[in-house]
Amino acid sequence: MKMTNKIIFGIDIGGTTIKCGYFDDKGNMAGKDEIPTRKENGGQLILADVADYIRRIVDEQGLSLSDVMGVGIGVPGSVRDDGTVNKCVNLGWGVFNVPEALAKHIDIPLENIAVGNDANVAALGEYWKGGGKGYSSIMMITIGTGVGGGLIINGKPVNGYNGAAAEIGHIPFVDDLDFPCTCGKTGCLEQVASATGIARMGGRKNAKEVFDAALAGDKDMEAVVEKVSMYLGKALAIAAGIADPECFIIGGGVSAAGEYLLEKIRKYYREYAFHPSRDNKIVKATLGNDAGMYGAARLIYKAD
Amino acid sequence: MKMTNKIIFGIDIGGTTIKCGYFDDKGNMAGKDEIPTRKENGGQLILADVADYIRRIVDEQGLSLSDVMGVGIGVPGSVRDDGTVNKCVNLGWGVFNVPEALAKHIDIPLENIAVGNDANVAALGEYWKGGGKGYSSIMMITIGTGVGGGLIINGKPVNGYNGAAAEIGHIPFVDDLDFPCTCGKTGCLEQVASATGIARMGGRKNAKEVFDAALAGDKDMEAVVEKVSMYLGKALAIAAGIADPECFIIGGGVSAAGEYLLEKIRKYYREYAFHPSRDNKIVKATLGNDAGMYGAARLIYKAD
Repeated sequence: MKMTNKIIFGIDIGGTTIKCGYFDDKGNMAGKDEIPTRKENGGQLILADVADYIRRIVDEQGLSLSDVMGVGIGVPGSVRDDGTVNKCVNLGWGVFNVPEALAKHIDIPLENIAVGNDANVAALGEYWKGGGKGYSSIMMITIGTGVGGGLIINGKPVNGYNGAAAEIGHIPFVDDLDFPCTCGKTGCLEQVASATGIARMGGRKNAKEVFDAALAGDKDMEAVVEKVSMYLGKALAIAAGIADPECFIIGGGVSAAGEYLLEKIRKYYREYAFHPSRDNKIVKATLGNDAGMYGAARLIYKAD
Repeated sequence: MKMTNKIIFGIDIGGTTIKCGYFDDKGNMAGKDEIPTRKENGGQLILADVADYIRRIVDEQGLSLSDVMGVGIGVPGSVRDDGTVNKCVNLGWGVFNVPEALAKHIDIPLENIAVGNDANVAALGEYWKGGGKGYSSIMMITIGTGVGGGLIINGKPVNGYNGAAAEIGHIPFVDDLDFPCTCGKTGCLEQVASATGIARMGGRKNAKEVFDAALAGDKDMEAVVEKVSMYLGKALAIAAGIADPECFIIGGGVSAAGEYLLEKIRKYYREYAFHPSRDNKIVKATLGNDAGMYGAARLIYKAD
């Protein structure tokens, strides 16, 4: 696709691959790619690789760097408002300012580079172009190996003082667990609602087996899904009591269970939620692995 | 005190009295008063009484209505962004736009009248001039007959889609209760941590008796205070997992128990909080019943 005369980059840096997307000045994705995340030498090749990608696309499109409206970047770790990261362990990164570091590799003004936490950035993507489109505020819950989250209010990510807002996987409310969470505490949602937790509770190899068996009528696995849904519904009700977002968006691998799971979560949510928030929406994420690229681009694209 | 040439009003409308304060253009409270809340006839006298108060103070100060920078108002109920209230039952009010209604009684431009929920407005007051001064984000928890809350991030109240953000009294995480909350659900923090709940748990006439006995060495009452602190510490840890405010502010009648209670809450908070948020502050509110007037004035006073 030939670009208009302006281009935005949305970059989602993960521990294995860097998802790279570019967008036109209307905010439409025009192309995407994946490059491996080179973590050697403290991850110092990562931003050089991002810079190379940007130059390649700009060249291919017959544009110049002055046509770049900006570069938005999602990183797996907490980020201060000025773009300083505090040890993204999955990238081998220490503490440094990401816009300044990227600007050493490519001639893009600092003010046109924006950085955010990956979970918040994915939530922003879903808010902008995905399941959360049209809602004033959303909380995204990503259920995969772990349980993460992002909170967007009036178009702005809520990061929290320590970058730990919307860490719904680690709210401590599950009383009857006798083993520790990866975080060191006990009683976290992640222990019972992550893919790992669901597989453990069902005694199966993975969460998909639990859902498949439940759908095929296995009573024990149906009970496991019911329990997982109860914990998720209660966790969303708790989150509503603190942030009251108009809509919850369920993403991550486990959300593949679709309406079967969502209907049960909604049932328990309505049972546990404080009455003013009882009708808040619960929907599925729609952008999949592209959410981070969309959200990163949205850090730059402020027009709607 | 003689005012400077500009005056701000901070009005906190409660079910029994209207707390009325006026502030100079530096944001200092210059005087305050209380007038009874006249709830008869659907509460339609309330804003007329507020208008009369404003006129009286403006006259006393030798000012005119054009010197009024604005009027901020806290009301006991949810408020939309445009100032429309949705049935403040404690005032007998229905659904109407408060700035428009007040402007019918007094010649103050609509854009200089701001309205907020009383709990959020009190939190804003503590953020501005009280226990939360200097913090970037706070959550206030008011522990009285019930348990209420307000959340302020970067100087702005977070109201929630239904005006139900920071309703920490009704987050459902207490598993072993066999009686209903006033809200109709079971398992709410309010059931175990309100003054009412503390008195019930201790089998005493009121919460003060429970704290006094615990301080005097009564082992049973010490155990009750320990349990209450555990629930409060866990609730704040849960709230930190969603909003991660830099500081929690404990207000309301029960906060009179002071450091004795705060130290215990901090201990449990640190035990339950997700590690990035473990050092978030927990402090006492300092403005008492004046918080609402300060916060209401702060809705107008935007200068710092």
